[in-house]
Amino acid sequence: MSKQHEEVQLPAEDLEQFVFEVFSEGGLPDDHARIASNALVTANLRGVDSHGVVRLEPYIENIEGGGFNPDPDITIDRSGPSSLHVDADDGLGQVATDAAMEATVEAAAETGAAFASIRNSNHFGTAAYYTQKAARADCIGFAMTNVGPNVVPFGGLDPFFGTNPLGFSIPTQRSFPITLDMATSVVAKGKIHVAEEEGDSIPDDWAIDESGQPATEPEDVEALRPVGGPKGYGLGLLVDVCSGLLSGMGTSPEVDSLYDDYTSPQRVGHFVGAIDISAFRDVPAFKSDIDQMIEGLKEIRTSDGIEEVKLPGEIEAETREKRSAEGIPIGSGVYDTLGDLGERYGVELP
Amino acid sequence: MSKQHEEVQLPAEDLEQFVFEVFSEGGLPDDHARIASNALVTANLRGVDSHGVVRLEPYIENIEGGGFNPDPDITIDRSGPSSLHVDADDGLGQVATDAAMEATVEAAAETGAAFASIRNSNHFGTAAYYTQKAARADCIGFAMTNVGPNVVPFGGLDPFFGTNPLGFSIPTQRSFPITLDMATSVVAKGKIHVAEEEGDSIPDDWAIDESGQPATEPEDVEALRPVGGPKGYGLGLLVDVCSGLLSGMGTSPEVDSLYDDYTSPQRVGHFVGAIDISAFRDVPAFKSDIDQMIEGLKEIRTSDGIEEVKLPGEIEAETREKRSAEGIPIGSGVYDTLGDLGERYGVELP
Repeated sequence: MSKQHEEVQLPAEDLEQFVFEVFSEGGLPDDHARIASNALVTANLRGVDSHGVVRLEPYIENIEGGGFNPDPDITIDRSGPSSLHVDADDGLGQVATDAAMEATVEAAAETGAAFASIRNSNHFGTAAYYTQKAARADCIGFAMTNVGPNVVPFGGLDPFFGTNPLGFSIPTQRSFPITLDMATSVVAKGKIHVAEEEGDSIPDDWAIDESGQPATEPEDVEALRPVGGPKGYGLGLLVDVCSGLLSGMGTSPEVDSLYDDYTSPQRVGHFVGAIDISAFRDVPAFKSDIDQMIEGLKEIRTSDGIEEVKLPGEIEAETREKRSAEGIPIGSGVYDTLGDLGERYGVELP
Repeated sequence: MSKQHEEVQLPAEDLEQFVFEVFSEGGLPDDHARIASNALVTANLRGVDSHGVVRLEPYIENIEGGGFNPDPDITIDRSGPSSLHVDADDGLGQVATDAAMEATVEAAAETGAAFASIRNSNHFGTAAYYTQKAARADCIGFAMTNVGPNVVPFGGLDPFFGTNPLGFSIPTQRSFPITLDMATSVVAKGKIHVAEEEGDSIPDDWAIDESGQPATEPEDVEALRPVGGPKGYGLGLLVDVCSGLLSGMGTSPEVDSLYDDYTSPQRVGHFVGAIDISAFRDVPAFKSDIDQMIEGLKEIRTSDGIEEVKLPGEIEAETREKRSAEGIPIGSGVYDTLGDLGERYGVELP
């Protein structure tokens, strides 16, 4: 969100209720609308505004355009004790993936570990939403998704894989699980948009321009670079194979954008997994070890201006606490868009 | 290996037989010596000389010093349909991890996916050795291990986690599986050693010196940096939790070096996994999709001087083909050390 615009602060419950009602009026069954609205507002609470209520508009446009099925018949088949096939029936990615992770955690409780492949899906928001669900059930949770092509493979000049994010959560004794939700590119696409809005240049290792040279202005960006060169390239490939090929959807080049065409489904694949801690360790002993690791990390010397080493997901947990108390800041552009959506469906924006 | 030294070329089979005989004389049962020698020479064949026969000396020193148990009683307990506990009984990491992956692949064939936690282990060589074994059984294979502390967490100035490598392999229709075997640091420790031997400076984002400033000379390196900042930090943490805490061994700070003390075991933990393709897709259809993905990658434009986009593991597969035909180059320093080890046990180096 651009800093030159005014912001309003909305209580999370009010914002979530608004999004719920819009989804509901848009044709989602109540239980689906609950999950989708909670997933979006949870992203805002954690400070991941790029994946929060700003996505309500394209979701609604896709529902109205016929691209997204508002009332999907989600099926979950257990092909083996530890393998699940989930069909999202062209609905919102959030609804199918939430159901998939729930079933995966249940299967992992029986077998020790389980994975679900999700097909015929659309944009699923943040991976962290599902991995944290698994962590609440004392599992190490994993989630990934493919994305339309916007990252060059190492050594290449054309985009092939997408930012293909990879997320995991690890249960702790603290108030939040350790959580990493990372694009396999140097930066997520959202950081380019932020730089563009703020009129900033970007570091020359983030992206390339049309001719394959380093892009230093956001408007010249043709494709992103993988994080760590061959490492991010390889991880992005893994995410695509697990998300797109285990599900039979195809890799990133076959995935449609959330924005370009509202009349056809994106045909995204996801992959989620859960490793049940109790199949390997006594859970309290494991969490006590995690706490000892955290204490060790907190004791080490830090760079200038850094108070202490943060855990993956700790800044997001702090933001969540703050925004839960103070409300979620919504920029005027997003606020206006939400207002328009509300008007369309006769739902009042707080 | 330094370029100013002379090299000899040894046929892979001769080198492997030599290593086998040294291990055998060192007290390893024949079947264990076969696995350990094959794992080391396979690393050399793939061009990963830092994890090849150069490690024979510290392994032998640890066996002689009492740190490594040459004849371990490796146990494999299946705590659940998809979870295995492997005790390496302080033997070589290669022997226990090879057995663990074999059992994991068998379990995954029954359930769809399985993982093994390996405790009381030592240095296991390359992750790729085990992940490629899984890929040969039409699984996506994963392997990881913790390592003594030598990488700073993001924002920190002291090492906490190790280079904690993470590997995976994906089966293909080609002559080799897609394979990534990556340190979660910007570079593996071996690259610092190579720069030191060659008298080169290093880029300022690889490592820090004692005061926490960027190290540009190899001899000033106090600790490595995680790849992609918070991303590599988070992945290294995940590797440590899965390797060290699911096994009950503890995290990197509790892992001993392979070199510092030959009288006590390293107390390393590993974690391997297999996802059985057939639980999710028809295997030939999956491999055909993989081939189509590869063709897509090969078609894209490349940077100057790069002929085509390479798959993860493709350069190593090419090196393997070349070295299988022409022999493995061994620098004079390593050759002399191997010769000394051979003399100690009455085994002739070819």
